Amino acid sequence: MIGECEVCFAPDNRRLTVEIGTTVAEAAACADVVIEQPCGGYGRCGKCRVRFTDGVPAPTLFDRRAFTSEQLAAGWRLACKAVLMKAATIEVPAPSLAVSVKTFGGEDLFPPDFERAIVAQTIALDSDAMDDQASLLERVARACGRTHIPKATSGTVRELARLAAARTERIQVLWEDDALRAVLPAESLERPLGVAIDLGTTTVAAALIDLQDGATLAIHSALNGQARYGADVISRITYCAEHADGVAVLQKAVAQTLSECIAHLCRKAQVARQQIVALALAGNSTMEHLASGVSPLSLGTAPYIGVWRGERSIPAAHLWLEVHPRARVWLTPMVRSNVGGDTTAAMVATGMDRDDRLRLLIDIGTNAEVVLGSARRRIACSTSAGPAFEGANISQGMRAGAGAIDYVAIHEDGSVVFHVIGNASAQEPARGICGSGLIDAVAELLRVGLIDERGWLRPPSAGQGPLPEPIARRIIRTDNGMNAFILAPAEKSAAGSPVCITAGDVRQLQLVKGSIAAGIEILCREMGVEPAAIEEVLIAGAFGNYIRKTSAMAIGLVPAMDPERVRFVGNAAGVGARMILVDRNARRRAVALAETTEYVELAGRADYQSAFAAAMMFHRKDT
Amino acid sequence: MIGECEVCFAPDNRRLTVEIGTTVAEAAACADVVIEQPCGGYGRCGKCRVRFTDGVPAPTLFDRRAFTSEQLAAGWRLACKAVLMKAATIEVPAPSLAVSVKTFGGEDLFPPDFERAIVAQTIALDSDAMDDQASLLERVARACGRTHIPKATSGTVRELARLAAARTERIQVLWEDDALRAVLPAESLERPLGVAIDLGTTTVAAALIDLQDGATLAIHSALNGQARYGADVISRITYCAEHADGVAVLQKAVAQTLSECIAHLCRKAQVARQQIVALALAGNSTMEHLASGVSPLSLGTAPYIGVWRGERSIPAAHLWLEVHPRARVWLTPMVRSNVGGDTTAAMVATGMDRDDRLRLLIDIGTNAEVVLGSARRRIACSTSAGPAFEGANISQGMRAGAGAIDYVAIHEDGSVVFHVIGNASAQEPARGICGSGLIDAVAELLRVGLIDERGWLRPPSAGQGPLPEPIARRIIRTDNGMNAFILAPAEKSAAGSPVCITAGDVRQLQLVKGSIAAGIEILCREMGVEPAAIEEVLIAGAFGNYIRKTSAMAIGLVPAMDPERVRFVGNAAGVGARMILVDRNARRRAVALAETTEYVELAGRADYQSAFAAAMMFHRKDT
Repeated sequence: MIGECEVCFAPDNRRLTVEIGTTVAEAAACADVVIEQPCGGYGRCGKCRVRFTDGVPAPTLFDRRAFTSEQLAAGWRLACKAVLMKAATIEVPAPSLAVSVKTFGGEDLFPPDFERAIVAQTIALDSDAMDDQASLLERVARACGRTHIPKATSGTVRELARLAAARTERIQVLWEDDALRAVLPAESLERPLGVAIDLGTTTVAAALIDLQDGATLAIHSALNGQARYGADVISRITYCAEHADGVAVLQKAVAQTLSECIAHLCRKAQVARQQIVALALAGNSTMEHLASGVSPLSLGTAPYIGVWRGERSIPAAHLWLEVHPRARVWLTPMVRSNVGGDTTAAMVATGMDRDDRLRLLIDIGTNAEVVLGSARRRIACSTSAGPAFEGANISQGMRAGAGAIDYVAIHEDGSVVFHVIGNASAQEPARGICGSGLIDAVAELLRVGLIDERGWLRPPSAGQGPLPEPIARRIIRTDNGMNAFILAPAEKSAAGSPVCITAGDVRQLQLVKGSIAAGIEILCREMGVEPAAIEEVLIAGAFGNYIRKTSAMAIGLVPAMDPERVRFVGNAAGVGARMILVDRNARRRAVALAETTEYVELAGRADYQSAFAAAMMFHRKDT
Repeated sequence: MIGECEVCFAPDNRRLTVEIGTTVAEAAACADVVIEQPCGGYGRCGKCRVRFTDGVPAPTLFDRRAFTSEQLAAGWRLACKAVLMKAATIEVPAPSLAVSVKTFGGEDLFPPDFERAIVAQTIALDSDAMDDQASLLERVARACGRTHIPKATSGTVRELARLAAARTERIQVLWEDDALRAVLPAESLERPLGVAIDLGTTTVAAALIDLQDGATLAIHSALNGQARYGADVISRITYCAEHADGVAVLQKAVAQTLSECIAHLCRKAQVARQQIVALALAGNSTMEHLASGVSPLSLGTAPYIGVWRGERSIPAAHLWLEVHPRARVWLTPMVRSNVGGDTTAAMVATGMDRDDRLRLLIDIGTNAEVVLGSARRRIACSTSAGPAFEGANISQGMRAGAGAIDYVAIHEDGSVVFHVIGNASAQEPARGICGSGLIDAVAELLRVGLIDERGWLRPPSAGQGPLPEPIARRIIRTDNGMNAFILAPAEKSAAGSPVCITAGDVRQLQLVKGSIAAGIEILCREMGVEPAAIEEVLIAGAFGNYIRKTSAMAIGLVPAMDPERVRFVGNAAGVGARMILVDRNARRRAVALAETTEYVELAGRADYQSAFAAAMMFHRKDT
């Protein structure tokens, strides 16, 4: 070790001591300041901008490419390449922060009498009476009040033999369902912990859970380390098709992310990793395949099927996770193809198998999965929504973090009111537009007639009726000749230039809302019901919490209905993963839901293509 | 490589070329001439004597200790230490040969419609129709005509994904019971093979089997590589208790033996090791524990219990066996304690669960296990017989190989007739006495009154009635003052000195026959039957084939009954292992037999001690 230096991250003033030579990005991660690195830390994308206010290092070649000389002089550097050589204070601007958009729901998920998936018991290996000829495994089962001889892996059998050989009188026994998961010297495990993982294509959310009472001890989220190999599942599958070691590379990448999440969780909760004796993972089918080292190629080509879909678990050691050596990762069963374990987990969390009403569950992430049904019957589909709501393909799109316009209203007088996510009560400067802002903006522009049914955004000079002057003034043509509408004027913008929504952005939203609405349409047809018969709409995904229900209905993203019957349920998949980790009954429900939920493959269906074309259109509502 | 030389082993003239520097023992093993090395090849025991008739090397220090200068001059050397430096011809005398005493029975074990434990099917991964949304695993099950989604290890799931990714249209599928054991490109596996292993404390017998029709392609036996760590299970357990890495050392030792057996089998049958996709192993409890790396310590101390006893299998890779990477070793379930999987396998082979008659099964190996019962009820025990029948603790004891006296009769005129195992029809010189010869000799000495009920062997001068001169002449006192009876006079002996049975040898036989007979007595009591009610006696263990039934009854080893109702069934455990490997129903029967057969622990039972004391006595029969 050469030496250490202290670093302080603004604006939260998180301080820590790091080894000299550590990159800013690494140091920030240790301080729980996760900096977005879409290119994977190779200095290419220029997105991880930070500003040194003290201890500024010499600029790297990457810095010289990314910044002007004024910016370099002001202390701007790329976090992935800047190396800490002395004490420093660093400002991380909001756009560089990988905002933890996914957080787990906090509601009370477990009834007091829930059936634990992991049961820890401390027992004595009883009686040395000669007439008791039960084997050690049988004694363990008996002492735990179980009648069946348990399944046990070779490792556990060997460990039991070692404990007996060492004449360990009292031992701790861990059961996972009917399997003897581990045996330990008594009380060596303070309390058994688990980790619930919501493995998204873009973001990984992990929660450290007390397996006895279900309490959440810590949460942490991070970008999926696979992101550098492609933004969506299709590009990850392509990577596997084009590289002989692709599956192994992507598995290692996500394993690395999970390992870091676990390290963070344990540090936050001040517990040892060895206490983690079980994990549950919910992800889309591609994520579950890659996490378990199984090639996802069959998911990428017709007929788009998985290698497996039912109950399955793998040793945590297969993911190189340094948790308890016998811990296994329970992979949430998948419905079919691209309706994966995350949807199953969301169905568990929202009780899709327990409610007799006809309900619609829309889980919006990088893709959107839709489930229509009730306790009696459910049909699911996956729409190729794409990550527009996360800011991708939107000219000034960004995640729902500080600086994002998340609310837009156009008043009768033509004034435009918008809200920017920020810390302070004072109006923050706008940096971009997030998913809910985009939906609001389009809904409002549609209402005032600036967007027509086909999604056509009126050009600056068009004379289709008189417009209030404040509105007309906001219609511009961008440098590349695209019509646009100014949401935030230059003076209210962080960059000093207006934040706009362009005709192209409207088109992107149309594609997304069209694919989701068409999916809903097809599900209704398959179920033989009218959209009006839907009694409740559940919108899952952290994004959902910011949407105005009326705007979502106005643009036709969800069927028009009483807004009271639209509920935002947050990260339902993450909540489901927690339930599945802790509650044996939730596991059973997940297996049954995955098995019994019907599936419609939209790709290649002619009626989906026509429904999609129709659903792209906007229908102005009479108020 | 320095160079090679040719070596020829007499008397069978097996020739092979070896690297210069190879020991004679290693070269012999390569030529399938297995030389006994009780001390493990450390030059200590002096048992591995061979004679060079050509190319004799300089004597080693070990040779100088083991041989007289005349013997050294005649070319005698210890095979474990003699190194081949040039072409040589070597005689391996019979006593130095580790005779393959265990061979598998040759009878037709499988009904034409037997249910294969391993099923190979070649299938097409069918239809790319979009409405067929079954996962690959489901398609495999469906194409194989199975209704359940199969259990599959991570390795198999990954392999299936790889085959699909490579667009392999036709694949070969291997099922083991309900589990999808392996998937391969079509026809890559010529025919699936298995290895049945009878894992004895002293000897390992392995058979290479065609899993489709049960045909035996090759057999091979070898000394258990654990032998150097102790002759019996107790000393192996002690080794584990005294060495921290004891279990690992002993597992590696037996794994090495199995690996060599497999290499021999594959060479003999001219097949690739990768064709071996399943193994079945039957051994006593200590052997099964050690083979799977599980500490056997609990078997060595009261209440003498195993760590597990029911159905269990381990990956062949855990034993470092270079067979098919997905092959597993099915460990035959154990009844209890020291009545292990070998006894279960012997019960399967002898149909102890299918015969309504009251039968007695005695499996004589290094220990002797006894089972009494019928299809309705069975009780088993393990007697501490010890390896006397294999020659241990007998002054001139040896295995039933060439040169062993295996038959003794004393005629009315006082002449002693004996038979020596050999190749030629002419009388071979005697080298020692094997188990059956020992039983014969004691039975005859008992009959003519030279041994009394307590087992007392009459001294040379004792005047208890007149003796025919030819008999009296044979009674001697050995150098260490022990009474003895000459079986083979010096002129008929290979060593030039008489082959005798001593008073100590009689005592050893008494201990063995007493423990077995007392076990039978206790089992009859537990079952509530008289020994006379036993309808058939089955004697298992290769040793059994040489015993004279009348002699075994005369000394009280088996209950007195019509000799027609005593059957020698050979290596029943080995036959059972073959059935269990190939036939799914045999596996089910093994599980049920191990589960339902009752067990009596003899150790520490007062009534066993008194039964043992009584059974030590000889009871002269009235003819």
